[in-house]
Amino acid sequence: MPEHFSFTLLKTDGMARRGEFVTPHGRVQTPAFMPVGTAATVKGLHPEAVRETGAEIVLGNTYHLMLRPGPERIAALGGLHKFMNWPLPILTDSGGFQVMSLSSLRKLTEQAVTFRSHLDGTMFELSPERAIEIQALLGADITMQLDECLRLPATRAEIERAMQLSLRWGERSKRAFEARAREGYGLFGIVQGGDDIPLRIESARRLGEIGFHGYAIGGLAVGEPQAVMLKVVEETAPVLPADQPRYLMGVGTPHDLIESVKRGIDMFDCVMPTRNGRHGMAFTRYGSINLSNARHANDPRPLDEASRHPAARAYSRAYLHHLTKANEILGQVLLSTINIAYYQELMAGMREAIAGGQFADFHAATLAGWENGDIPAL
Amino acid sequence: MPEHFSFTLLKTDGMARRGEFVTPHGRVQTPAFMPVGTAATVKGLHPEAVRETGAEIVLGNTYHLMLRPGPERIAALGGLHKFMNWPLPILTDSGGFQVMSLSSLRKLTEQAVTFRSHLDGTMFELSPERAIEIQALLGADITMQLDECLRLPATRAEIERAMQLSLRWGERSKRAFEARAREGYGLFGIVQGGDDIPLRIESARRLGEIGFHGYAIGGLAVGEPQAVMLKVVEETAPVLPADQPRYLMGVGTPHDLIESVKRGIDMFDCVMPTRNGRHGMAFTRYGSINLSNARHANDPRPLDEASRHPAARAYSRAYLHHLTKANEILGQVLLSTINIAYYQELMAGMREAIAGGQFADFHAATLAGWENGDIPAL
Repeated sequence: MPEHFSFTLLKTDGMARRGEFVTPHGRVQTPAFMPVGTAATVKGLHPEAVRETGAEIVLGNTYHLMLRPGPERIAALGGLHKFMNWPLPILTDSGGFQVMSLSSLRKLTEQAVTFRSHLDGTMFELSPERAIEIQALLGADITMQLDECLRLPATRAEIERAMQLSLRWGERSKRAFEARAREGYGLFGIVQGGDDIPLRIESARRLGEIGFHGYAIGGLAVGEPQAVMLKVVEETAPVLPADQPRYLMGVGTPHDLIESVKRGIDMFDCVMPTRNGRHGMAFTRYGSINLSNARHANDPRPLDEASRHPAARAYSRAYLHHLTKANEILGQVLLSTINIAYYQELMAGMREAIAGGQFADFHAATLAGWENGDIPAL
Repeated sequence: MPEHFSFTLLKTDGMARRGEFVTPHGRVQTPAFMPVGTAATVKGLHPEAVRETGAEIVLGNTYHLMLRPGPERIAALGGLHKFMNWPLPILTDSGGFQVMSLSSLRKLTEQAVTFRSHLDGTMFELSPERAIEIQALLGADITMQLDECLRLPATRAEIERAMQLSLRWGERSKRAFEARAREGYGLFGIVQGGDDIPLRIESARRLGEIGFHGYAIGGLAVGEPQAVMLKVVEETAPVLPADQPRYLMGVGTPHDLIESVKRGIDMFDCVMPTRNGRHGMAFTRYGSINLSNARHANDPRPLDEASRHPAARAYSRAYLHHLTKANEILGQVLLSTINIAYYQELMAGMREAIAGGQFADFHAATLAGWENGDIPAL
């Protein structure tokens, strides 16, 4: 019988937390970074290659999968794990964020949101209950409640209205999830409230009263300054239950991750390592490196000879530069892989540091590595 | 000390030949198919993945590499094997075919061809001697002479003029290659003569008199009917030295390969498995399968459960259809890999059949598999 969702807080170091959660498809060490498998694939990577970066869980996008190939189809084919050949845990978002950012002709009521697919114009309706149903069809280990994501800037009244609606949708989500909770799957609520700290605190407090298996902070990483995001994280995280996981959605740069872990976040997802990799940018312990820059054209050195991942050690910067300039698929594949591997290496470093009570030292050393910048060109 | 180029004819079965050649970077069993690594990468595949398809040799394109990143740069970085992380044999073409098909403003003299790069308009000159020099800078195990590839249709006089020029360029290539031949590398001459059998025979005979390590048949697979191509192969192959390898350039479909092996060809290269894979087409023992067709959308079966390659067994047709429709990189990668693996499986099957004196049976069974077509839709 598969294990039921649970979270164990193993160690704290300041506000930083070292933990582990259990799902029906396996265990995940936190702080954890989840590569994004938008359309049932982490773009460009074989599932085995995702695993070899050190990732223990991936994210799937309900919005994309409901449009194509459709959740009923994936269920008939045995669920998302089988469909994409990924046997480890999967968290799915609820679709709320992409409905806001990708679709057109949205109409929002208390009951549901209706919208037009950005692919072919088909109309869809997404209610809290349908979001739960879709994620059950996909077979998600962790399900996210449907929330209303606002485009910012918005008035305080608008932010509060959306936050209150998201709370009511959280309650409906919890009711709709009861059978699935009994089977051992996890449901996370989502804190909203924009950049308004009192609203964020109210949202976090009331979600805790409803009671979920974990809590996400949503509606950030939508263009606000990093300081605003970190302020919201800093004020919100302590209000959330200490014995449950905290997930900062859609974040972010390596610097965002280390600063957010410092403030008590356990989980992240972001398209940045794959999206930027497809555009020739590498994330490394030397900071980010633009492989399309001509200074790499004759450089026989690897991106990072001390990396834990072979792709960061085996290919020269000159070769990665060449592949990037020639717009070769292999360049996109290698840089996406190298970037996810760096994110995983960063998370592993944070986990080890927290476990050893050395997070402040690790934080300082990591930032110094980025700030000192890349190795000099030959 | 690396081994010198040599070819051993191990077995014949009708006109079909089972052989082996030795190069400074290893041995290759023939009949062999060489995946095309145009721009120092077999499009979409890690070099380890190319190896895992069963490929023992890849082809590099002199034209593409001389334009970008440049042969002197690759030499300074340790040669093409090191640059692209491919430790096994590499054959490079001479650039003649791409000069004809891709560049503009060609000017041909007895001495050389000058042309304008299709990338940025830079002018380049390619002589037989420079083609040898470039391929030495790349570190090719097998070097191809520069030849003149005509656009067809052309008059007999034009075809003969180009054939005679290619012979003179073959002589110059051999002289320019002397030092490299002493180091153990191989040089192949190229038969030209269009669809004119007497010209083809003269070209083949005179190349044999000059003396190369192997012989290619060029100027085919440029749009002529398959019957014309096979007629040229059938009439030309017997004129070539029996104890040296024969390479049919730029060919072809699986059916082209089996018909050409039947007529005495030992080596092939073609972009078809990767190019068609990137466009959603799979080559299998059931024939070619268009994964973008909606009949695959709900099909949980793999492309070929009896394939030797795990990717053809592990992913459902429904998933490959989804990736193709969503234009996901992983779909292009998986189908390119599956197609090269099928080509390698076909070559391995031919090698085993020839060794066992069963080529006619293998030929009949393989064609029957393709002609019976794909498994019925569910």
